[in-house]
Amino acid sequence: MAKAVGIVGATGAVGAELIQVLADLKFPVGSLHLFASERSAGKTVTTPFGIKTIETFSVEAASKMDIVLLAVSGEFAKQYAPLLAEKTIVIDNSSAFRLDENVPLVIPEINGEAVKELRRNHQLVANPNCTTAIAAMALWPLHKEFGLKKVIVSSYQATSGAGIEGMNELLEETGRVLGGEEAGHKVFAHPIAFNVIPHIDSFQENGYTKEEMKVTWETRKIFGAPDIAISCTAVRVPTLRVHAEAITIETEKPVNPGAARIVLKDAPGVDLVDNPEAKQYPMPVNATKKHNIEVGRIRQSIVFGDHGLDIFVAGDQLLKGAALNAVQIAQLFI
Amino acid sequence: MAKAVGIVGATGAVGAELIQVLADLKFPVGSLHLFASERSAGKTVTTPFGIKTIETFSVEAASKMDIVLLAVSGEFAKQYAPLLAEKTIVIDNSSAFRLDENVPLVIPEINGEAVKELRRNHQLVANPNCTTAIAAMALWPLHKEFGLKKVIVSSYQATSGAGIEGMNELLEETGRVLGGEEAGHKVFAHPIAFNVIPHIDSFQENGYTKEEMKVTWETRKIFGAPDIAISCTAVRVPTLRVHAEAITIETEKPVNPGAARIVLKDAPGVDLVDNPEAKQYPMPVNATKKHNIEVGRIRQSIVFGDHGLDIFVAGDQLLKGAALNAVQIAQLFI
Repeated sequence: MAKAVGIVGATGAVGAELIQVLADLKFPVGSLHLFASERSAGKTVTTPFGIKTIETFSVEAASKMDIVLLAVSGEFAKQYAPLLAEKTIVIDNSSAFRLDENVPLVIPEINGEAVKELRRNHQLVANPNCTTAIAAMALWPLHKEFGLKKVIVSSYQATSGAGIEGMNELLEETGRVLGGEEAGHKVFAHPIAFNVIPHIDSFQENGYTKEEMKVTWETRKIFGAPDIAISCTAVRVPTLRVHAEAITIETEKPVNPGAARIVLKDAPGVDLVDNPEAKQYPMPVNATKKHNIEVGRIRQSIVFGDHGLDIFVAGDQLLKGAALNAVQIAQLFI
Repeated sequence: MAKAVGIVGATGAVGAELIQVLADLKFPVGSLHLFASERSAGKTVTTPFGIKTIETFSVEAASKMDIVLLAVSGEFAKQYAPLLAEKTIVIDNSSAFRLDENVPLVIPEINGEAVKELRRNHQLVANPNCTTAIAAMALWPLHKEFGLKKVIVSSYQATSGAGIEGMNELLEETGRVLGGEEAGHKVFAHPIAFNVIPHIDSFQENGYTKEEMKVTWETRKIFGAPDIAISCTAVRVPTLRVHAEAITIETEKPVNPGAARIVLKDAPGVDLVDNPEAKQYPMPVNATKKHNIEVGRIRQSIVFGDHGLDIFVAGDQLLKGAALNAVQIAQLFI
């Protein structure tokens, strides 16, 4: 029953969250192995599973695990995930295999049964993009009940999307600006302190960024709904680890805020936070380190009338946007 | 030719900008009178028009001006603007009269001719909401050429929307958080440092905030287009004085990014900043203290196809969103 679990990329922001979430979800960890690059090997990390020594990654060592969680670059995943997946179960946080038709892209609350399609010797599951996962948690219950035709997303994305380096860059830049210095910047294309940057990942030929297109492509795949028209404008804002999103939907069936609230109130992994009079609505400060995503500001859309809603969501980018969802996928195998 | 100009609320954020913009636009200021509450009276201010002493506001004193610029609360405007407007030209920054059918709501580049409707003894002009004005600058050229049917706005609004106090609150909170203290908050409903707050102005019965409804109501009035379906989700973000907005439009006629760029390139008051490959797009850091609003990230909408676009705009909330537009309205009278 207890599993040998390996985390590759254990020293990054998502890696650290993976360790914590394994403990929080009481995952049956028989042994935990933390893999990283040679640079970090030998360092020790205090975890809920005891003090662990970082090991240099090798296919041989990682293949001995029952489950391998990859928190690495797409390039690294492309090279090693297929090799590992011949021997063991691999859950990949990168974008490398998300659109591969032989790899299920899974949010357990939505399409957990997709892991049943896994072929022997190719036990690879992809973890969705963070913005996609957080939006999908609120959109899926609405899609099931009312049918989504159009979805328009504008994101307010945290610096954790660029890892610990992104979060540190925000804090350091902010300190410099408050001290009267130039903000400077290294991780992001421009200063992020007291700024917003409508540019995440690379630009595609159609003018959308890859981050924006991930929301379109991945949501369609996870929902098994290739015809939903979905667009996103992805914007980096000076927050630490929670993505917020303003979403407008047009539905097949008539919808209204009351009916949507009934559906969302009981949706797994979703907290309905929609009491404007009490100043309660989804916000990064409250959604930080929270497993559930928050949804609120539910309004009958002025644009789509009785077939549309405006909603606002917020979710922890490192949790449901990454580590939490990955461990929930791992739970499908116990 | 030279005018006696009065600024009421001269000690606020917009008041200070009004003085500067009068100089920047070389407005023919014969004499400048700065009015504020009794509390500020007697203080001196160094201006491009010399050192000025703040005067206590009175209807009698302000009525002697040729033009009065009001940078005061809606309540104050409601009480005094009609009295002043019997004697002189009044340009009101508040929301008090924007939807009054006897008061033109003006963005000079769009509907400057509306001031011709002014009745003698009721020379009152309303200055639009900041989010509305900044969006309208990019939307109007597109509306003229392609016809707007649907407009969906998500805003990234700066703290200057709550005046100097709002900007100071952001800076002070941020300093506290970096110092390991609680952020605290007074001006905004929640901490704004490293947060986003989907709540600006009061909530209406339909679930939208008044700020959001202003975008709907005011855009329709300024464009003379009561049938455009416009919705907004207004979100406060931790920036200082530039509002950004992600906007999706559906048009009557077919549209494409190239055609939109041609129209926007020559639009007065608009800078086309749309060169993603060179990492050029609208951003608060660049639009700060700039008269023109920036528009970029122009994409063929995935949702509305060949009848739709996604765009991103950024504009200085204190300038085109307030003081600049007010002085441009004043210019219509010289």
